[in-house]
Order: sequence, then C-alpha cells, then structure tokens
Amino acid sequence: MKLSVFAVLLQDQPFDKACEYLASLGVQAVEIGCGGFPGKAHCDPKDFLAHPEKIDQMKATLEKYHLEIAALSTHGNAVHPDKAVAKAFHEDFENAVLLAEKLGVDTVVTFSGCPGGCPEDKTPNWVTCPWPDDFTNIVNYQWNEVLIPYWKKEAEFVKAHGVKKIAFEMHPGFCVYNPETLMKLRNAVGPVIGANFDPSHLFWQGVDPVKFLKAFPDRIYHCHIKDAEVTLDGESGILSSHFNFGDDRRGWDFRSPGHGQINFEEIIRELNRANYQGPLSVEWEDAGMDQWFGAADACAFTRRLDFAPAGALFDAAFKK
Amino acid sequence: MKLSVFAVLLQDQPFDKACEYLASLGVQAVEIGCGGFPGKAHCDPKDFLAHPEKIDQMKATLEKYHLEIAALSTHGNAVHPDKAVAKAFHEDFENAVLLAEKLGVDTVVTFSGCPGGCPEDKTPNWVTCPWPDDFTNIVNYQWNEVLIPYWKKEAEFVKAHGVKKIAFEMHPGFCVYNPETLMKLRNAVGPVIGANFDPSHLFWQGVDPVKFLKAFPDRIYHCHIKDAEVTLDGESGILSSHFNFGDDRRGWDFRSPGHGQINFEEIIRELNRANYQGPLSVEWEDAGMDQWFGAADACAFTRRLDFAPAGALFDAAFKK
Amino acid sequence: MKLSVFAVLLQDQPFDKACEYLASLGVQAVEIGCGGFPGKAHCDPKDFLAHPEKIDQMKATLEKYHLEIAALSTHGNAVHPDKAVAKAFHEDFENAVLLAEKLGVDTVVTFSGCPGGCPEDKTPNWVTCPWPDDFTNIVNYQWNEVLIPYWKKEAEFVKAHGVKKIAFEMHPGFCVYNPETLMKLRNAVGPVIGANFDPSHLFWQGVDPVKFLKAFPDRIYHCHIKDAEVTLDGESGILSSHFNFGDDRRGWDFRSPGHGQINFEEIIRELNRANYQGPLSVEWEDAGMDQWFGAADACAFTRRLDFAPAGALFDAAFKK
Amino acid sequence: MKLSVFAVLLQDQPFDKACEYLASLGVQAVEIGCGGFPGKAHCDPKDFLAHPEKIDQMKATLEKYHLEIAALSTHGNAVHPDKAVAKAFHEDFENAVLLAEKLGVDTVVTFSGCPGGCPEDKTPNWVTCPWPDDFTNIVNYQWNEVLIPYWKKEAEFVKAHGVKKIAFEMHPGFCVYNPETLMKLRNAVGPVIGANFDPSHLFWQGVDPVKFLKAFPDRIYHCHIKDAEVTLDGESGILSSHFNFGDDRRGWDFRSPGHGQINFEEIIRELNRANYQGPLSVEWEDAGMDQWFGAADACAFTRRLDFAPAGALFDAAFKK
Amino acid sequence: MKLSVFAVLLQDQPFDKACEYLASLGVQAVEIGCGGFPGKAHCDPKDFLAHPEKIDQMKATLEKYHLEIAALSTHGNAVHPDKAVAKAFHEDFENAVLLAEKLGVDTVVTFSGCPGGCPEDKTPNWVTCPWPDDFTNIVNYQWNEVLIPYWKKEAEFVKAHGVKKIAFEMHPGFCVYNPETLMKLRNAVGPVIGANFDPSHLFWQGVDPVKFLKAFPDRIYHCHIKDAEVTLDGESGILSSHFNFGDDRRGWDFRSPGHGQINFEEIIRELNRANYQGPLSVEWEDAGMDQWFGAADACAFTRRLDFAPAGALFDAAFKK
Amino acid sequence: MKLSVFAVLLQDQPFDKACEYLASLGVQAVEIGCGGFPGKAHCDPKDFLAHPEKIDQMKATLEKYHLEIAALSTHGNAVHPDKAVAKAFHEDFENAVLLAEKLGVDTVVTFSGCPGGCPEDKTPNWVTCPWPDDFTNIVNYQWNEVLIPYWKKEAEFVKAHGVKKIAFEMHPGFCVYNPETLMKLRNAVGPVIGANFDPSHLFWQGVDPVKFLKAFPDRIYHCHIKDAEVTLDGESGILSSHFNFGDDRRGWDFRSPGHGQINFEEIIRELNRANYQGPLSVEWEDAGMDQWFGAADACAFTRRLDFAPAGALFDAAFKK
Repeated sequence: MKLSVFAVLLQDQPFDKACEYLASLGVQAVEIGCGGFPGKAHCDPKDFLAHPEKIDQMKATLEKYHLEIAALSTHGNAVHPDKAVAKAFHEDFENAVLLAEKLGVDTVVTFSGCPGGCPEDKTPNWVTCPWPDDFTNIVNYQWNEVLIPYWKKEAEFVKAHGVKKIAFEMHPGFCVYNPETLMKLRNAVGPVIGANFDPSHLFWQGVDPVKFLKAFPDRIYHCHIKDAEVTLDGESGILSSHFNFGDDRRGWDFRSPGHGQINFEEIIRELNRANYQGPLSVEWEDAGMDQWFGAADACAFTRRLDFAPAGALFDAAFKK
Repeated sequence: MKLSVFAVLLQDQPFDKACEYLASLGVQAVEIGCGGFPGKAHCDPKDFLAHPEKIDQMKATLEKYHLEIAALSTHGNAVHPDKAVAKAFHEDFENAVLLAEKLGVDTVVTFSGCPGGCPEDKTPNWVTCPWPDDFTNIVNYQWNEVLIPYWKKEAEFVKAHGVKKIAFEMHPGFCVYNPETLMKLRNAVGPVIGANFDPSHLFWQGVDPVKFLKAFPDRIYHCHIKDAEVTLDGESGILSSHFNFGDDRRGWDFRSPGHGQINFEEIIRELNRANYQGPLSVEWEDAGMDQWFGAADACAFTRRLDFAPAGALFDAAFKK
Repeated sequence: MKLSVFAVLLQDQPFDKACEYLASLGVQAVEIGCGGFPGKAHCDPKDFLAHPEKIDQMKATLEKYHLEIAALSTHGNAVHPDKAVAKAFHEDFENAVLLAEKLGVDTVVTFSGCPGGCPEDKTPNWVTCPWPDDFTNIVNYQWNEVLIPYWKKEAEFVKAHGVKKIAFEMHPGFCVYNPETLMKLRNAVGPVIGANFDPSHLFWQGVDPVKFLKAFPDRIYHCHIKDAEVTLDGESGILSSHFNFGDDRRGWDFRSPGHGQINFEEIIRELNRANYQGPLSVEWEDAGMDQWFGAADACAFTRRLDFAPAGALFDAAFKK
Repeated sequence: MKLSVFAVLLQDQPFDKACEYLASLGVQAVEIGCGGFPGKAHCDPKDFLAHPEKIDQMKATLEKYHLEIAALSTHGNAVHPDKAVAKAFHEDFENAVLLAEKLGVDTVVTFSGCPGGCPEDKTPNWVTCPWPDDFTNIVNYQWNEVLIPYWKKEAEFVKAHGVKKIAFEMHPGFCVYNPETLMKLRNAVGPVIGANFDPSHLFWQGVDPVKFLKAFPDRIYHCHIKDAEVTLDGESGILSSHFNFGDDRRGWDFRSPGHGQINFEEIIRELNRANYQGPLSVEWEDAGMDQWFGAADACAFTRRLDFAPAGALFDAAFKK
Repeated sequence: MKLSVFAVLLQDQPFDKACEYLASLGVQAVEIGCGGFPGKAHCDPKDFLAHPEKIDQMKATLEKYHLEIAALSTHGNAVHPDKAVAKAFHEDFENAVLLAEKLGVDTVVTFSGCPGGCPEDKTPNWVTCPWPDDFTNIVNYQWNEVLIPYWKKEAEFVKAHGVKKIAFEMHPGFCVYNPETLMKLRNAVGPVIGANFDPSHLFWQGVDPVKFLKAFPDRIYHCHIKDAEVTLDGESGILSSHFNFGDDRRGWDFRSPGHGQINFEEIIRELNRANYQGPLSVEWEDAGMDQWFGAADACAFTRRLDFAPAGALFDAAFKK
Repeated sequence: MKLSVFAVLLQDQPFDKACEYLASLGVQAVEIGCGGFPGKAHCDPKDFLAHPEKIDQMKATLEKYHLEIAALSTHGNAVHPDKAVAKAFHEDFENAVLLAEKLGVDTVVTFSGCPGGCPEDKTPNWVTCPWPDDFTNIVNYQWNEVLIPYWKKEAEFVKAHGVKKIAFEMHPGFCVYNPETLMKLRNAVGPVIGANFDPSHLFWQGVDPVKFLKAFPDRIYHCHIKDAEVTLDGESGILSSHFNFGDDRRGWDFRSPGHGQINFEEIIRELNRANYQGPLSVEWEDAGMDQWFGAADACAFTRRLDFAPAGALFDAAFKK
C-alpha cells in the first residue's frame, strides 16, 4: 500500500513546500483537501477548473516530488439545515468530483452530512438514542426525506463524471457514523458508496475496526491512519466528548498513529487479506503532541507497519 | 433504606390493586408518576389539586397497605423546543410540586429537559460531540439561554412551595445526562438541584456509579434501582442505541436489577457511607424478561441487597 | 421452558424411584437414555419394542409423576471403525428412533460419531490439526466416505419414522464437535440435523455459546444444562484433557450448573429470543461434588434461571 | 545467545546463496534441515556420509560466511503406523545423528512422532481427550508399546554416536506436544531427551512458556523463535485448527516473531536466568506476511531482543 | 465440614446466650477465644484451669446447644519486644494449650508474633522490603535469634501436652504472613506447625489461596471463612493499609463472606480434594455492614457453600 | 525535557570518563550523587566545599561534554534511629544543599527517612498496617515527634541557602512512600517539599503514576525514569519483596525503562500537560540485564519517548 498524508495538515505552507517536506518523510501520495470543514488552501476545485493551468502546475509539483494523488477530499455537510451552508458544502463536493474527473482520480472522500431534526430546524441534529420519541422521529425524517434522496442524486452526478467511489468517513456528528449507518446508506443508494476506513472513529464507539474489514472487505474505498485512546477513568464518560479535544474530561481522544490503542498490526493483515491496494493516508491529529514531531513520527510508523502479504515479494531477495 | 417501586409499571391497574400487589412483594414505599413521558394514570396532580378528596383517598389507600410516598415524579421535557409540548410538561412539573406541598413530600423527580439547537428549531437536539462547531454553539445556546434561566425560575417556584429537592435523573437525550452536566446545572442554579441516582444510565457511558456517590455524597436526593448490560460485540457500538430497547444491534440495554453488570453491592456500601436514608426505588425495565416475573424478582433482589451499615442494628439480635 | 433431567444419572435406581425422586425436585420432563455410551438401564428400545406393555408401563410411571419425555438419547458412535462396535451403536440409534415413533417423541439426541483415519483402521481418530498432511487426509476421508453417507441414509430412516429432529451434541472426540462441523454436516445432509445445545462443550474450546444461539436460532433442537470451568494455570494446557475428569492437570473440567464459568443468564435470554420451547435438560457431571447434592442443586439452579420472555405472563399477576 | 535461522526457509536457494543472505542479516548460526517433513534440500545426511567431500564443502561455506551450525534437524514421524513412512523418517533421524557425529554437533532436533491407535491402524492418531474409552486405550498403547520402546532404543544409538541431546519440539499432532508429555518421555527414556523450546506451540494451548522455562531450566536443549496469535472471536474455537494456516476460521495462527502475542522479553530473561547458551533459531512461518520481509524482520527483532544478563558485559563499555 | 464461628464476635454476651444465638443460625462448632488481642471474655484458660468446674460448665453449655469446639485461639504476639507484653501473650498461649489438653482439643490457633528489629528495640518491626540493608539485617535477627528458638521451645511444650497442631494465621504485621514465611518456620521447627488457612489475608497480597491449598494440602490445620476486597483506584495503593479498616483511602478491606472477591467455590473444592475435615470457622469482620446482619448472613453463606465431595453422600438420597 | 542519567551507576569510573560515556549516549544532564546510600564517589560536597577548585573542575568537565546538572542527590535516612547513622546522612544532605547553593542548582533529591518505632529503638520501622495497635502508635510517634519537626527545620535551612525544591523520592522503606504520605509531609512543612516522581515505586503498590501527575501537576520537582514489573504468579505475593532484587520469589522487580509495565507514553503526555520542564533522569536498575547494555538502551528509549507537546515546535520544520 502507498504511504499518503492528508495534506491539509500543511495548509499554511505553499503546496510545493508541503510536498517537498512530505517527500522527505518518504511519503508516496497526498490526499488533497478540496473543501468542506478542513478547507481548500492547496486546491480550490472551482478555481482550478476555471484555470486549468493551475491543474497542470499541481501535477508538475507532484511529479517533481514523485507523489501521487491518493484522493480528493471534501469533508463537509451538504445536507446542513442552513440552506446557505449546505449549498457551499454541496458545491465543494461537486466541484471536487469535477476536478477528480479532470485528474483521473477515482475516489472522493467526504462525510454523509447531518440534517436538522425537521424541515424547519436550523441546526444539525445528530441522534444516538431512541427515546423520547422525538429522536426516533428525527432519524426517520433525516434518512427518508433528506439523506437518501440527496445521495441518490449525487450518486448519479458522480457516476456521470467518472468517479467510481464516494468514500464516506464514518464520523460522529454525521448520520453515517458507524458500519450500520454506512451500510444503510449504501443499501439505499448503491455501491458507489463505500468506506473511508478510519479506525479512530470506530474504536472508541466499541466497534472493532478489524471486524468491519472482515465483514466488508470489498467496500474499503480509502483508508485513514489515525489512532485513538479511550481514557475512561470512571468520571469522564464516553459521551463526554462534547468537551474539546485535549480536554482530559473527555472519555477518549485522538492520538498520533502508534501512540493510541488501535491494533494496526491486525488492520494491516486484514487490509492485505481484503486485497486493498489503496493508500494508507495519515490524517494527523493529536492534542498532546507537537505536529511536526508527530507528522514525521506518523509517517515512520506507517512505513514500518505496512508489510506485504504472503507471496507479494516472492523471490525478491534473490532476484535482484 | 426503604424498598420502593416506581408505580407507573402498574398503571394499567387501579391504584388500589397496584398497591395491594406491591405490598404483597414487601414494598414499603411508592414513587408516584405525576406526569411527563411515563404518564399520570394513578395520580393527575391538576385533577387531585382540584378535587382534594382524591388526595385523601390516595392517602387512605397508601395507609391501608402501609406504604409511604417515596417521591412524586414528572419525567418530562419542560424546555422542549415545541412550545405546546413544553407547556404541558412544565405544568406537569409545577402541579407535581404543588401536590407535593399538599402531601408533605419533599422531593420531586424529573429530567432537565433538552431544548432545540437554536430558538427557531422545533426538535430537541442532544449534543455529545464538540465538532463541527455547530455542536459547540448549540450547547452554549441551550445552557445559557434556555436551561439555566428556566431552572433558576423553577428553583424559586419549588422553594416557595416547600419542596426541598429536585432530583434530576441523569439521562441520555437530555442536557443533564452525566455527573458533569448535573453539577454544571447545580452550580448555576443552587443546591435545590441534586441527583436521582440511577446507576443504569451512568454505567454504560463508562461512568462509575460508585465514584459518583463518593464524589457527591450529599447530593443524592433519590435513588432508582435499575440495571444495565453492555453488550458490545465489536459490531454494535455504544452509540448504536438509536435502535429500540431489546434490539440486539444496540451496544447496551436495560436489565432487571441483578441481571446486569452493575455492582449493587458497592452501591449499597457507598449509599450507607453517604448516610443516604431515602428510598431504593425500583424502576423496572427489561426487554428480555416478563414484567411480572421481573417485578417480583427485582423487589426480592433489592430486599436482599439492602444491608444495614455498621452499628445500625447494634445489639438488635439480643435486645429483642 | 420445561425443567428436565437426563435420567441416566439415576440408572442404578428403578425407573419409578428415579421418577419419584426427580418429581420431588420439581422436574417436569425426563430425557431417557436408550443406548450408546451412557447405557439403557431404564429403557432398552429393542426390548420395549418387542414388549409393548413395557412402553405402557413407562408411560404410566411418567404420568404418575406428571413427567413428560424431553427426548430419547443414544450417545453412541455408529461410525466406529470396529464394525461390531459400530453395529451395536447403529442399532441403538435406529431402535431409539422406532421407539420415539411409538411414543410420539419428535427428537432423538445423539453424537455424530468418529470413524478411523482410513478404511483399515480399528480406532476412532479425532482430528484437530491440519498438519502433517496425514491429518488433513483423514478429515477428508472421514467426512466424504463415512460420515456424510451414513447420516444421509439415517436421515431417510428417521424421516420415514416420523422423527423430526436429530439433535447432535457437539462433543470433542467426535467429528461434530463445534458449530462449524455441525453446520457442515447439516449442509450436507439436511435440516433434520440440528443441535443438542450443550454449552459446556463449546465454552472451553473458546466458542461463545450465546453467539452460537444468535447465529442459528432455528437449529436448537434440544438443550443440555451443564457447566464447565477453564482451569488453565500456565502449566496444564487446554489440550491436557487426555487426563481423566477431576484430575487437576487438565485445563478444564465439567461443573454442576452455576458452579462454573458459563453465563447462563445470557443463554436463557437468547433461547427466549430464539423462541426455543424445548426442555432445559440437566446432564449432571462434576468430579468435585457429590452427585445427590449436585442433582438437587442443579435442578434448583435451573428453575431459578428460567425466566419468561417479555409478555409471556402478561397480566398474569392480576388475572389469576 | 547466537542468532540462528532454520535454513529450510531458503531451501529453494543453493546453500551458499542462502548462507550469504543470512549472513547479510546478521545471522551467526544455521539450523540445518536433514530430513523429516521440512526436507533435506541443503543437506542429505545419507548422501553427505557417502561423500565426505560434501561435508567439507558445507563446512567451508559456513566458514566463509562466519556461520556456525546451531543444530541438525529432522522433524519426522519415525513411529508412523505406515511402516514404509516410518522407516524413511527413522533413517533420516539416524543419518542425521551420524552426520552430527562427524560434524561434532551435539544436538539433533526432532519430533517424538505419533503412532496409530493400535497395531493394525494405518494413520497416526493424536489424542487429546480421555473419553470415550477408545482414546484412553489408544494413549496407553501408543506410549507403552511404541513410543517408549522406540526412543529407548534410539537413545542408545544417539549416545553411541556422541550426540548428547535429542531436542524434541513439543508439537500438536505428535505424542509429545506439551511439557507434561515431554517429561513423561524423558522420565521413561533418560536425560538425553530435552526440549526444543518453541513457545509458539505452547502459547495457544494455554501453557505459559515462561513457566516451562522456570520449571525445567536444565532441559532446554534448543530454542526456536516463532510467534503465535490466539484469534478466538467466539465463533472459531481453539480446536478449529484443522483448518489450514492463514484461514481465519482457525482459533490461532503462527506469526512472525514480534507480530504475535508471545512475551519474548520474559522468555529472554528466563533463558538468561537458566544460563541457556544455545542458539535462538528463527523458524519463520506467517501466513499473512511476505517471507522475505518476514525473514529480515524476524532477524532484526531477535537481535534487538537478545540482551545480556546482569554482569555479562562487565566493564565492557570502558575496557574496549 | 462443620460450620463454626469464632465466638469473640459475641464476647459482650454471656457464653450461654452466644451459643444459643449461634445454634439458631445452624452453627455446629465454636472457635473459642482464649487470649491474645481478641481477648478471653468467654474463656480465660488460667481461670478455667484453676476452677475445673468452669470447664464442665462450658462443656455443658456446648452440649446443650449441640456445639463442638472447633479450636482454641490465642492470637497474640508472644515475641513482642516489650518483655511484659510478650510474657502475657506467652502465658495466654501456654494456658490455652493446657486447657486444650484438658478438653481433648488438638488444635490451637495463634500468630507467629513479631519481634523488634534488634534486642534493644521496644516496638515490633514488620519487614517487607530488603533495602536499605537495615531491613535485611532485621529479618535475619528476628528469625534466627527470636522466632525460631521460641517456637522450637513451644513446639516441645505443645507436644508434651497432647496438642497436635499449632495453626498459624498468616497475618500481615507478624513474621509469618504468607506461605513462604509459614513454610520457613515449619521447616525450622517441625510439622506441629501448620496453617490456619484464612484466605482474606492472602488474597490482597496477590497470593492465590487455592494455589496455597494445592501446594500444601496436608498442612491445613484450621480454616477461617473471611472475605476481602481489593479497592485499588489508582490513588489508594496496596500499602495504604496503615489507615484503619473502613477508611476508603485503604487499598483493600475485609468483607463479610460472599461480599468480597474471594472465590470460595474453588476453595471448597480444593479443601475437599485435600480431604480437609476440620471446621469452616467464620471470623466476621466488615466495616461496612452491621454485625448482626453480617453474622447471620455469613453463616447462611457458609452453609450454602459447603458441598460434599464426589461420593460423600453416595446413595444417600435413596437409602434414607 | 532534558535527558539525564543518575550518574552513580558509573561511580567506578572517573567523573570525566563517566561524562564522556554519557555524552556519547546523547545525555544532556547528569544527576550527581552527593551522599546517602548510593554514595558520593564523583562528588563529596564536604570535600568540594573545602576545595572550591574541585567545583570548578567539575564544572569544566560538564562543560566539556555539554552536560548540565539535573540535580544533586543524597538518598539517605537522616532520621535513622541510630544517632551516628542519622548524623552522617544529615550532614550529607546539608552539605549537598550548600554545594547546590554554590552551583546555582535549585533542586536536591532525597528520601524522607524512616525513624524507629519509639525513642529507644535502634532500627528503622516502616509501617504499612494499622493493627495491632503497636503500628498505629509507631506511625503517630514517627510523624509527630520526628519526621515533621526534622523537615520543618531543614526547610528553613534549605530556604536560607537558595535551594527551592526538596524532591522526595516516594520509596518503600521510608515514611514518605506514596502520594498520601508525601502530601501529608508537604502539608505539614510547606511547598519546598515536592516529588521526585519515580513511577517505578508507585506502580507496584497499585498507585497510578499518571493519576499522581494529574492530581499534583505543580509538585513535580524532579523525575526518575525507571521501570518495574509486577510478577505475581499466585505464589509470590506483593509483600514478598523482602527477598532481594532479582529473586523470582519476589512479587515485583525493577526493570530497565521500556522493559517493564509502566506506561511511559501517558507519563510523558501528563508531564507535558503539567508543563514540567525538568530533567528525565534515568536511574538504572535491572537485576536481569547487563548494565552497559541497559544504560545505552535506557537512554535511547528515553530519547524516543520524549516528544514535545502541541505547539512546541511550531513551524520548526519550515522555519529552519
């Protein structure tokens, strides 16, 4: 698998400088932020589509540093109950698809989004309990009247532009946040929807990332390497994550890969077994570590981690 | 401590029959449902206040079966974003307080409630994640503009009518759902707010019920005996509780006391240490067990459980 | 579910006395040993079929003590490599089926049996490792040339005589010893084959009895209540069970129900969820406990254990 | 301790090339396959004994790469119930002993073998359960009539040819598969029999490798470095190892050293405490990893692992 | 085994009343306090020896309530560095032995005692660390110059008076506090020294009570039934037991039997396996439970616990 | 944080050679032994104070190898019951303070010491149990009459000489051995007393080192990097540490950092969160590892371990 980094980590740097730095860490591919919450400092699809020379320039930079594009990403909320907000995220997504078409990239990474609780609401309403009945009613509204219709429409758009995979990051705060909700949407919309497999979001929910890979080996469209730590101490509570990252009243937190509790050894074995050939894309986030130390450390960790499956290097040691 | 049952379990029965049955199980007190979601079949405060003879009749029935009132309960959502819904729950609460005053009951049990995400919203929005920023903004709105003002006002009302304790059940789906949010509200409103200590809601969040009792021994205003089981299997996830109770895709479920994973032995020790003298009120809920089997089993379990602290029965064995 | 006992435990007693004793323990049904390793002291089918008055006498005894027949059992090895041994077990099984037909019993409990490693062998060869290749070859021979043909033939015989369920006890020492091998045989032979669910044999192998029930809720044809304890201490090893029961060099041992590590609470919940209506049949075996103490203790344990599912006793408390 | 590799991993390569590669990984000794199941591609003892110049050539190659001989190995089944098969393995073993004599090697590694269940059987019958009685009878036959007589005879042969240690690999599928069976054979035959300590076979049985070392510090005649992972998930079962390696229905599997669950840190400490001076011989097997990646990784892991006991390097840092 | 209670629990009551109460709980034997720390309210051996009619009276009382003597106990410190204190405890012990002789009781229960750190010291010095060297020197002094000589002498005294067993309670605060120190003293003094097996003191040290029984089945001279709970929470520490019992800053505490973490099921199995025929003597201590509730609860628990080993009641169910 | 080594490990070497070696391992600071049990081979404060040129020489050596002074250490027992012993340790401590003043070092590391059990005793008496009452009396004497008065006096001395921090190593065998006793002394004496945080001593007591850091982030005056392993096996017992280090009858032992069970990852995170800027000083002790291997390994481990907190290296990657 190819070592990738989600390059928004370096968005304060010019793209060339960011690439130079990543290449120095042994990175082979970049996941490029094209909008949504993480922003589009390196690559604004609308702008690039309007000025194709910028596309060529980006390609040239990548070539200079021997980097591939792992995927384009727009982690937004295109079904936000505030119409203006929704529109901006929606355009980010569609522009990213159009740019992907131009670049020959077959995967766009995004969130499912989260609507309000009813048509009149103005705030996203993420539901994890069935009672009082308000909550069950909200879930029914969100899925049947907003989420499924929206993504059916977008699936058509995506297919019309040659993009083969929408890789949803199962992420708390959005309707698709675990394997069950991902499969519910896929079943409703079609196989263009699959997973951006990011074990950090599954782990602390009690979902076993390896079991997910075993159950859906053909639906892994992208992979984030990100770690997490459950820090429950009897006081904090797993639902206390309304506190910000790094606050030790939370019940869990993100960690630089290898510094948390996720069993990446078994993940690599299972990705190999699933014949996953896509990138291992480091999405770095750790409130307790310097980001430059962390970025280098994470890349080194991921390189050590990624061993080839049986037979992959057959006779390599002697044939060279 | 006194063995109590939250009598809405028997609301299909006339109050006299329900009391007769409970007395036959050795129950010493009843928690009476006076509105909110569980209903007021046995006791509608508004009606009782208008017809004082009904109060006398209830007292007579209780006396007949040697039962005390453990507390009055109105588990509603008085800050519901739908004004009409909010009003009904609000009136339930205030009427329950007025009835408590008449009955000389010093504790009313309820929920904190859960507003919408902004003034325009129509659905309650329960937040457990800080990001995207929508969620942090919602929390700030809910607490500062709705929850704290409302309960400050109600605290005055309650005190004006001789009720000493509002016992909030920390319950997912409402703003007060764990020790931290309970203490946040108490700190803002005052010591009239304390806990309806129900370990079943804390346990599956990863909050240790015993640690809560150790930390806040003087804030235990009421106690529900209810068990829970975490049933994580690597697939379900602790946030999968949007499925209904009894559905095995959930990550946890309620259990009849003694049939789950809660360590009631340590809870009794800590309640004794805290010198808690209130009721142990069985709130029975178990999707996998017959309710009549369960009610009797739960009362027997709670009776066996409730041992006296050191010295409580001093010389009792020989003085009788 | 009905409380049953596998009556070979009492085979030193006349059948009437055994029934009297069991009835005194609250037992509602008996599983009757009709041959195989545990013997047929109470009921030799061949003899009963030849002397129908013995059938009537047994029925009368059962009626006298208000006992039903839970199932007929012949735990033998009808595919034993020693032809004479195989024949005796084979006849036990077929005679039990014929007797079941006469009694209107729809379930016969047995083992799959275990052949030799090749046609010339004289000893049963139970395989649990794939290498050296001898072992893989043995497995292929046993299943393809002996086990499947034999049970296809017997399935016809059974169906011809009105018995609906062959309940295989998954048991080490025989080819069907875990869920995978049971399903392999069922897939080859047909739905007449299901499980005698005995959690004690699954537990120490690391197989979760509850997961088995979740996976195959419609294939539970009978149920043994028997407990086990894994006693690994770093020296013994799980494969050290070639030592006899009660020898503390073993890595596990049988236990009287409730005295081992099996979670019967979850088993009852899952049997209820699967709508299992058959018997809970105590097969008592515990090398560290007196059998009379144990039998009574096991029946009391099983009675306490067996709670009704939600709704089963609806209104029972008030309708009586 | 010396870093060794069991060189059959490289038997597709000429011996010189294999040695060159191993030396490049920092290997200091080789365990040479001389027959049995793993084969004798690099060194056929019969052939070498007949052509002594081949012995000289092998010695020269080893010297060229500064490699010692860790041990000669013939992992066969010399008591196989098929006489012809048994004979071939028997000759492999005796020839290996004769070659060891010539080379001045004092240790030969092998298996105990596994007979049939009775004299007429044609397949090896490995027993791990005591019941039905067939199995107990088989064990008695195998040990008393086959295994002990055979190894008593071979012990004489071995001693007559100057080999001091027969190192049995405790291995499922053979009569000696755990500490208890190893000690049973040693007690019957004499101290020429000891352990090829390979923790991977002990670990998944629930046997603690470190406890074995503590109990028998003077019986460690050779040491394999090989890891294992117990992968029980409630469905697979520890006895499901009749599936082939790499099949995820198994309950355990082999792993490249450091990629499994074996605590090598404690093993090294205990080997040091036992004053073990022999080789640490990597026997590489991992169905989920490329063998060339794995071989290099395993050697690096073992080098890092092998720290000196207290005092071993006394003043070394300053005396150089 | 016989159900016994260590009767100092009831020493505020006259002996007759205490016996009456115990008999009402089903108790079959009493362990009588004859001095040491727990006192001699019921039975002062010196006084009894001087007034034999008191012996007869005690016997008559015991007979009246069908109670046997389980053992005489003097839990003192006969090697206390303060000579006067030591003398009193020493006389308690010897008088208890003389009284045991008169009563035909073969077991006296006591502590090993704890000397000072050197001949000049005035306070007992209990050592659990080897460094600084002060502590190692103290241990050597205590054992070689005080403890062993004293108990060698007492062993002679005991044997001269027909008492066969000195049952030492392994107890922190005294030199004999775990299996190793008990065996060290027994090895030095002789087989008259064995264990008062009290699992509560072993458990929290990390010593497995069952392993002790397996290792020394013939050295169990008496048995206390007492439970304990390790309450470590990351703050308290296992050495924080200098706080008094019931203080929650301790790392462990005593519990009424069945209310702590000790696995009594396995203890009963192992006592049965060891063929232990002595009493199960409840020594009740629980800072969080009323003692009268606790005493009755502990006796009921111990009665339920004590099942007979295999074969003990053979045919009992039918022979009566 | 700065990598330091407690240099008494190298006291057989001249100071210059020791420094040269440490610098070669990447060490940035040294903790210098100035008396107490570990000795003062490199630096005898009394001698240095008398011959200031030795101070200059030491400074020159440190400068030559770019080493700072992490702290001066005198791990003695200044309240030893033997007056002569106490005096020597007392003078070590005060001389170290005077030297620190000269060197501008603000931290002196030491032990609290341990008195006898009463004024007449001659041996230190370390108490960890409350009963018999002897022990509670001893604790009261030690703290009120010896420990608190002594350290109040020394606090004055220390402050008079410009040393800001007395860093007590919480160490079994001395009165301050866990967080509770450290805080008890600090509360009595003042904020000049804080922790030499050495997780190895806390861990095996069941005290969570990370919880200590969370509770007292402002009281970490120094930090030792030392690992430990709890080796309880059911026989050894956590109090069996009266055996010497390396003896496997102990229940725990010290380990080279990274070779034990301490979670240093979380410790570094918490030290960063506490804004600790002091040294990470390796105090190497491991009875199962060669010390030269271990010293180099420990320094490499600590270097890898010590990552910067969020923001610490901001833009460093690009600004250089």
